[in-house]
Amino acid sequence: MEITFLGTSSGVPTRSRNVSSVALRLPQRAQMWLFDCGEGTQHQILRSDLRVSQLSRIFITHMHGDHIFGLMGLLASCGLAGNVQRVDIYGPSGLNDYLQAASRYSHTHFSYPVKVHAVRPGVIYEDDEFIVTCGFLHHRVTSFGYRVSEKDRPGRFDIEKAKVLEIPPGRIYGQLKRGEVVTLADGRVIDGKELCGPTEIGRKIAYCTDTVYCDGAVELAQDADVLIHEATFAHQDAEMAFQRLHSTTTMAAQTALAAGVNRLIMTHFSPRYAPGNEIELKDLLEEARAIFPKTDMAYDFMTYEVPRR
Amino acid sequence: MEITFLGTSSGVPTRSRNVSSVALRLPQRAQMWLFDCGEGTQHQILRSDLRVSQLSRIFITHMHGDHIFGLMGLLASCGLAGNVQRVDIYGPSGLNDYLQAASRYSHTHFSYPVKVHAVRPGVIYEDDEFIVTCGFLHHRVTSFGYRVSEKDRPGRFDIEKAKVLEIPPGRIYGQLKRGEVVTLADGRVIDGKELCGPTEIGRKIAYCTDTVYCDGAVELAQDADVLIHEATFAHQDAEMAFQRLHSTTTMAAQTALAAGVNRLIMTHFSPRYAPGNEIELKDLLEEARAIFPKTDMAYDFMTYEVPRR
Ligand SMILES: [Zn+2]
Ligand SMILES: [Zn+2]
Repeated sequence: MEITFLGTSSGVPTRSRNVSSVALRLPQRAQMWLFDCGEGTQHQILRSDLRVSQLSRIFITHMHGDHIFGLMGLLASCGLAGNVQRVDIYGPSGLNDYLQAASRYSHTHFSYPVKVHAVRPGVIYEDDEFIVTCGFLHHRVTSFGYRVSEKDRPGRFDIEKAKVLEIPPGRIYGQLKRGEVVTLADGRVIDGKELCGPTEIGRKIAYCTDTVYCDGAVELAQDADVLIHEATFAHQDAEMAFQRLHSTTTMAAQTALAAGVNRLIMTHFSPRYAPGNEIELKDLLEEARAIFPKTDMAYDFMTYEVPRR
Repeated sequence: MEITFLGTSSGVPTRSRNVSSVALRLPQRAQMWLFDCGEGTQHQILRSDLRVSQLSRIFITHMHGDHIFGLMGLLASCGLAGNVQRVDIYGPSGLNDYLQAASRYSHTHFSYPVKVHAVRPGVIYEDDEFIVTCGFLHHRVTSFGYRVSEKDRPGRFDIEKAKVLEIPPGRIYGQLKRGEVVTLADGRVIDGKELCGPTEIGRKIAYCTDTVYCDGAVELAQDADVLIHEATFAHQDAEMAFQRLHSTTTMAAQTALAAGVNRLIMTHFSPRYAPGNEIELKDLLEEARAIFPKTDMAYDFMTYEVPRR
């Protein structure tokens, strides 16, 4: 699981930071999932080592332009240039109507299935390996945070040890791999758990933007390996954060602390903290680290391979 | 009058070429006009020496995504970061509905007036210095070409010569400047034209995309100083051009020749002619120059200062 930040500015793009989008690469299944899709996301993908042909799911937090204006262009290009099989899009209830209207006015016909799912808090997607849940955040419009949980996997089956014990291969191996207790034909009782390594704990990622500090974010981020949280403002500008229902560095760090996450990556920075201004982004990083030391600051094209515990 | 190409690829962006947009800078009035606005146009403006605060008019040729998906983001950013007074947008009749729908779904409220004008062939804008006309092209959806004509200006009034002739300053100077014949108090008859330099012929720019070869483009481009014309395909791919109602290099050059323009600049190239492929963009340039030698090929951020005749 590798995270790539494609846009880390709030509201408007700057010369060095595009508006919101984060890619999650799942190499084991050659898939890319996206979180938010601001204008120019397809351009950022072109400039990264991500492949648009691997795009399979897009999760949209809310309907503000800096999070959705890249959707139509990306979906259209997937049909023209990409080799995309099908895209599932998850987001607030207005999303489908928006995409339908934009497709109609622009005469865009997708050459592959695009399915839009209106989400509600709870489990929104599940397969053998992953569960995705979402929950309400607190912003000026309905806004959802997302959590991707990799399921725990039984430890690796020690086939050499099984051979030494002269366990006959076949259906019994499958049972032992699942950690079951099996009685062999010769009467020996074997506990599968003793032939398996330690359980691989699944990784958990939470993505919370746009929001002011809220319990919903803490809940989604509970015990996560990585929390990606917006930090539009410096602590000093908290009044603006409360007015516009965005977060300060302090709020992001307090969310990370309360949720007991392993690492916090802040993103969605106001362009007002550009180098040379009174408060700069390095000041924002310091503010957050004072509360939650394992904090990093995202920049465009930054990648983070989520480590296993 | 300076033209800046902001996007020169057709359909999808590539690493080096964005989708369609052309800026026209009118330095004498500190204004920027845009023709088409594909996704990422605001990003291209950020990377150029153009200033978004000077944006005053946008002319849209047709409703395909690669010509309009940058509009909402640009207009939203003009309100947030720019210092824009008012933007007038000209285009096909669906444009206003599209912008209304996109604004509604994305909760975008412009902080300055945005007025959308549905165009029909003929004069669509006129002021003291400029006339803008449009006409039908021939594409898969309703498509308009645009022509910007600078009005002719009377030559510079030779104030030194007027002084030598002992013409008393005042209202009479204004009449003579306009080239009128004036009888002075002392009975002398003075022809204003003899005190004025040669008339400054206004410059004319035509913008024709997307279209297959058509009389409408020839008419719009008549006698233009610069014709910007799409050339999606090489001559060899004419069959595709006819199917998709796009132009080949040959069609662009024949339009320039038939219209008697001074210079042709081709744009809107299919990504299939990327370097290393069987046919490359330099081959497209050769094809056009064989028919119309004064042809250039646009690239992103290319600027062209339109010379006076
Ligand atoms: Zn935002
Ligand atoms: Zn086009």
